[in-house]
Amino acid sequence: MKLAVLFALVTLALCCSSVSAGICPAFLHVIQQLLMGTVSDYIEATEPFNPDFAMRNSGVLMKESLDKLPQMAKENVMKLTKKIISSPQCN
Amino acid sequence: MKLAVLFALVTLALCCSSVSAGICPAFLHVIQQLLMGTVSDYIEATEPFNPDFAMRNSGVLMKESLDKLPQMAKENVMKLTKKIISSPQCN
Repeated sequence: MKLAVLFALVTLALCCSSVSAGICPAFLHVIQQLLMGTVSDYIEATEPFNPDFAMRNSGVLMKESLDKLPQMAKENVMKLTKKIISSPQCN
Repeated sequence: MKLAVLFALVTLALCCSSVSAGICPAFLHVIQQLLMGTVSDYIEATEPFNPDFAMRNSGVLMKESLDKLPQMAKENVMKLTKKIISSPQCN
């Protein structure tokens, strides 16, 4: 029984450590490619989620719009994203 | 001891249900305001995370850039976001 409790608590700890990421790693990868990658990188990052035609087109429109921002602005938005997902509110 | 196991498992279940969201709710709120809200709504959603001056300015630049997209494109990107965070890869 003690072993069962230990097992449950270890699983709980592992489970909560994945909560503390504040975001699903695959989604963070999409955001990183959206801000810092090429259009192809972004499309590749979203493909595993099977976006429909409208989602794919709209995503590329958004990417092309963000690509017009200064590099520094995109880096600052990436920093803000990381600040949010590592904040106490997200952990 | 059985009560301890039960407590651990209930906590585990609650913990894992928050993982299955795939994203921290406060971050999802920021994304929703970024795509669908006003500039003020977006700023208000990010304030709890204490963005520095550069992060705040860059975020507003990004918001103003996305506001030029057709409403339908923004809705499709929101749908894609929800599809990603509810996907098996994020749960």
